Amino acid sequence: MSKSRLETFADGVFAIAATLLIIRVSADASGRALGGALTHAWPQYAAYALSFSMIGTWWLNHHAYMEVIDHVDRTFLFLNLSLLVFVAFLPFPTHLIAEHFHDAGLRAAVIVYGITQTGAALSMGLLWSHAAKGRRLISPGVGQRIVARHTRDVWVGTPYCAAATLVALWSPYATLVIIAVAEVFYIFGGTFFLRRSATESVV
Amino acid sequence: MSKSRLETFADGVFAIAATLLIIRVSADASGRALGGALTHAWPQYAAYALSFSMIGTWWLNHHAYMEVIDHVDRTFLFLNLSLLVFVAFLPFPTHLIAEHFHDAGLRAAVIVYGITQTGAALSMGLLWSHAAKGRRLISPGVGQRIVARHTRDVWVGTPYCAAATLVALWSPYATLVIIAVAEVFYIFGGTFFLRRSATESVV
Amino acid sequence: MSKSRLETFADGVFAIAATLLIIRVSADASGRALGGALTHAWPQYAAYALSFSMIGTWWLNHHAYMEVIDHVDRTFLFLNLSLLVFVAFLPFPTHLIAEHFHDAGLRAAVIVYGITQTGAALSMGLLWSHAAKGRRLISPGVGQRIVARHTRDVWVGTPYCAAATLVALWSPYATLVIIAVAEVFYIFGGTFFLRRSATESVV
Amino acid sequence: MSKSRLETFADGVFAIAATLLIIRVSADASGRALGGALTHAWPQYAAYALSFSMIGTWWLNHHAYMEVIDHVDRTFLFLNLSLLVFVAFLPFPTHLIAEHFHDAGLRAAVIVYGITQTGAALSMGLLWSHAAKGRRLISPGVGQRIVARHTRDVWVGTPYCAAATLVALWSPYATLVIIAVAEVFYIFGGTFFLRRSATESVV
Repeated sequence: MSKSRLETFADGVFAIAATLLIIRVSADASGRALGGALTHAWPQYAAYALSFSMIGTWWLNHHAYMEVIDHVDRTFLFLNLSLLVFVAFLPFPTHLIAEHFHDAGLRAAVIVYGITQTGAALSMGLLWSHAAKGRRLISPGVGQRIVARHTRDVWVGTPYCAAATLVALWSPYATLVIIAVAEVFYIFGGTFFLRRSATESVV
Repeated sequence: MSKSRLETFADGVFAIAATLLIIRVSADASGRALGGALTHAWPQYAAYALSFSMIGTWWLNHHAYMEVIDHVDRTFLFLNLSLLVFVAFLPFPTHLIAEHFHDAGLRAAVIVYGITQTGAALSMGLLWSHAAKGRRLISPGVGQRIVARHTRDVWVGTPYCAAATLVALWSPYATLVIIAVAEVFYIFGGTFFLRRSATESVV
Repeated sequence: MSKSRLETFADGVFAIAATLLIIRVSADASGRALGGALTHAWPQYAAYALSFSMIGTWWLNHHAYMEVIDHVDRTFLFLNLSLLVFVAFLPFPTHLIAEHFHDAGLRAAVIVYGITQTGAALSMGLLWSHAAKGRRLISPGVGQRIVARHTRDVWVGTPYCAAATLVALWSPYATLVIIAVAEVFYIFGGTFFLRRSATESVV
Repeated sequence: MSKSRLETFADGVFAIAATLLIIRVSADASGRALGGALTHAWPQYAAYALSFSMIGTWWLNHHAYMEVIDHVDRTFLFLNLSLLVFVAFLPFPTHLIAEHFHDAGLRAAVIVYGITQTGAALSMGLLWSHAAKGRRLISPGVGQRIVARHTRDVWVGTPYCAAATLVALWSPYATLVIIAVAEVFYIFGGTFFLRRSATESVV
């Protein structure tokens, strides 16, 4: 099967999941109270921005991998669906965090958020490893150095996200800081975090 | 009419319907109660995952058929729309099942779910049969063996889904198990269920 | 400007608007009452199916016109946006009709529905006429007979929809029958209604 | 990285954000009261139409810039994501304005709307300037006159939107008039406002 249709479907899910994040953002108040309610609702915007950039990052990495892949097989299709299940699920825990940022429900919300991230990272790892094993689905012209670097880097995400999720048992705020810092480093640093090689190949 | 535009529209509907599933997922509780509410809401996640993979499977089969089709005609366009009506409808019964999993409304919810699945399977059957009759819309280079196999397999779905729907009159849980087992076999087995030849041609 | 990007954007809006229709479908009841509530909610399904097929029909006609258009200009872009404004608006009056089918609000709901349809038909007429005037945007190879037939047929929609909307002042049910009958004739007849030539060129 | 995938993702977000605007439109009333409620809800339709045309305009400008860009780099990808964050956010303040048009919350709603617009304009400016600096990402065949004109025009949007936002401290209605007038001039005039050169290149 050619990879182009898989990319179209995946691009659709990535773009829709990112755009659907806004549906759950709300700040209900009437009249003069709206200004205060909108200010109080800042976790809604922060959660929206964080999840939007997470989905954008997943999309970037997905493309970095697809660029060196020649074709796809049945297992790859289902691992890809598994990744998309977690991507499309993200608006739900994002909403939970925004709604419960100021109450005791935050821990449970962050754990669901972290599990979703870990599930996506794990799916991404399995997706790439399936493609890379014995260069099964890799384009002939791609250097083995790039494949090896992707293989090394793709597996940083799963333990990182899993550890961040466990930290929520101690402090859900710490989990959010860990995830947000990694995202900021990824965006502005580009030389620090797990997707280094992925972005290099993107550039 | 070239088939590429039809594929773009269909891909859009498949991707959007799958991603919209998350909109109805909810677990409303305040403060410390959220953890329990999230655990109690497991049917929401299960229904989400099941319907997401159903839509992914329909998308896979749709592509398997489109790959051997050369062009489309007016009847094909409307049968395709008919299929998409059922695909886009799926988030509604999915939500009904999730909401009513713990009460007596489950039977009615599962019946609507099963009718939607049966409608999609029937549309898929009519879609393929219209294309395959006398090789009306089939690409010249495609072997008759593949066409015959698709024709045989595409019609397994309708009685299977219809029977599963009828089982809900006895036990809605049994219906869900029948549908979920078929889906799991399809994903992990690939040699068992109705879309065998479809996936072979996908690979 | 090449027409392909406009088609991508328009295809996206058509597919999303059709799929979003399901979001407003609901049937809230608890336990054993759900079966009755789901049966009582039949206007929801009927409105969903009618609007889904309307959007599908608009999409078909849009493609029939785009097929004979060579390139687009600034005015065409804005007329196209105007069409999409009405297409994307349709889920709202569809929901109104479904919600108010059993009460006195139906008249107002149907009038909004009819105005939306008329607006879409009018935009489609202006869109095509702008392209066809002096063959401004028409591909050189397209026969003048096809252009003339499109010009004649595209303007049947506006008075038809406007008249159907006015009928709602007398009976909103009659309006819905008029719209639904036209749609059914269009789908199954193909030789009756306004888009005859459009579909001929589609085939 | 080739620019085509970025365009697909951006097109998806533009189309989805525009179509999602309808989800928040509502007019809840029962029976005979619906007609009055629908009339009273006119700010909902006006806000919908304004935001839909704003997104359409952003999409047009985005394409005008992409047309003269040859390839994209890592910084461009993230500036593009930053633009899309604001585009996808627009349905939220649009809804706030529609809901609070008749009460004292309008000022706060319009300020959020204005900040979103300013953020989008600023992202668009940075996006283009990054591409244009030393013709970093510009296609070789594109005349320097076009690049210079884009550079001059793209930066009109940010102060215009920022100033319109500040005006809301005095009168939120004035802000809406300023934004709507600019949009109307842009659509019907095409020779007045900031995107003049962009649209010229679009045509």
